[in-house]
Amino acid sequence: MGELCVHSVLVTGANRGLGLGFVQHFLRMPKPPQWIFATCRDPKGQRAQELKDLASKHPNLVIIALELANPASIKAAAAKVGEHLGGSGLNLLINNAGLVKPKTLDSETLEDMTETYTTNTAGPLLMGQAFLPLLKKAAQGSPGSGLSCSKAAIINISSIGGSIASSFGWDMMQVTSYRCSKAALNMLSKCQSLAYREHGVLCVALHPGWVQTDLGGATGYAPPVTVDDSVQGMLKVLSSLSEKETGTFLDWEGNVIPW
Amino acid sequence: MGELCVHSVLVTGANRGLGLGFVQHFLRMPKPPQWIFATCRDPKGQRAQELKDLASKHPNLVIIALELANPASIKAAAAKVGEHLGGSGLNLLINNAGLVKPKTLDSETLEDMTETYTTNTAGPLLMGQAFLPLLKKAAQGSPGSGLSCSKAAIINISSIGGSIASSFGWDMMQVTSYRCSKAALNMLSKCQSLAYREHGVLCVALHPGWVQTDLGGATGYAPPVTVDDSVQGMLKVLSSLSEKETGTFLDWEGNVIPW
Repeated sequence: MGELCVHSVLVTGANRGLGLGFVQHFLRMPKPPQWIFATCRDPKGQRAQELKDLASKHPNLVIIALELANPASIKAAAAKVGEHLGGSGLNLLINNAGLVKPKTLDSETLEDMTETYTTNTAGPLLMGQAFLPLLKKAAQGSPGSGLSCSKAAIINISSIGGSIASSFGWDMMQVTSYRCSKAALNMLSKCQSLAYREHGVLCVALHPGWVQTDLGGATGYAPPVTVDDSVQGMLKVLSSLSEKETGTFLDWEGNVIPW
Repeated sequence: MGELCVHSVLVTGANRGLGLGFVQHFLRMPKPPQWIFATCRDPKGQRAQELKDLASKHPNLVIIALELANPASIKAAAAKVGEHLGGSGLNLLINNAGLVKPKTLDSETLEDMTETYTTNTAGPLLMGQAFLPLLKKAAQGSPGSGLSCSKAAIINISSIGGSIASSFGWDMMQVTSYRCSKAALNMLSKCQSLAYREHGVLCVALHPGWVQTDLGGATGYAPPVTVDDSVQGMLKVLSSLSEKETGTFLDWEGNVIPW
């Protein structure tokens, strides 16, 4: 299990929280990726300032506008990434963007269900479709057999809240629309692993821990894990993955989580 | 484990397939329910003819228009059911209506994902909310402690296709939007079981088998289980459920299915 070493990576929801943490960790690597594509909904907005400051110092960091609820926006982003990469592929797609609405089961609405599912589940599906050609290209251009994150992988940032078996944290937060969307994202990860294995693309669902982010803090409780620790842990897990782990659900420390 | 004996039951998607099968079995019981509410989108349409013929012979069968994608329609249906029941509650809510789009992972669209999720997952959530007062009333009006389908229960008709652990039938049909919606429905069933236990309402997800219906035939293969056998099996399972089984995922023969 060596250091994760990729030529190119894309992170969604990269302007804050775990997404920004991923970008920072990639930039700090001894051998940083040649391309770090950081997507967010509004790269010109105030909430992307930190990302913009980083990009002004790091020419390998490219900010790209991407709205997960808009299939045309996803396709346009894939085309832009393809242009930057020239003939080479994309090694790592990190579907990190997600949203949670702090609601009880009785206060959920059709709009909550739809909006949460669109961003947390349908978005990663559309991302996988749009970036598959670039992921395949990366897999084909990598030496050796088997699957790994250094070749080509889709990482879906899920949550233990999506574990039906554990029903973790129910007493603290019901967030049924979120739980349903993450259980569905876990299913999507399994489907992607089955469909994309033949293309040399590894797919997993990752629980980042209960992290000190806006989302993690939506419980009203203080999350125990820092963004730094979570991202460092997840990158270590990614570096260890092989074809044995494709289609599984792991946490930031590498433990298997029950579906 | 005796015969299932309920005062009132509501079945969605009752104009054909498993829904119609449920209605027929309830009507044929030695002690049929006093109220069988059969909902479908278009009670006046040609596809509801068989249901209408049954209703003309059985005064305890009431057909009610219900569009799962329309929260106002769900609320209106709950109000109508409440009127029919007078002061009494609803024992059994069977969320049976569902849809599948025969697609590969690569051909799924945002519209497929949204439409499938709305009917298969958000619909049952909204149904649970709208009918909870009537379910609570039934639970309060029933003698004895513990949970059972004769008191008050929500039965979500799921599918082994929604089992992330099994990825059943992937080589025959990918139907990712369907699988994601059913994994999410399983999570919803778990959430409902946790939230509604204190109200005396049992909640389970049921896999009906691979049944000879329009939906079961969407694979292009011939399903092995008849509607009659599936419904008979599920009703036997329902009659056996207690608080031990609330929040579980069972098949039509009573076997536990892994999430």
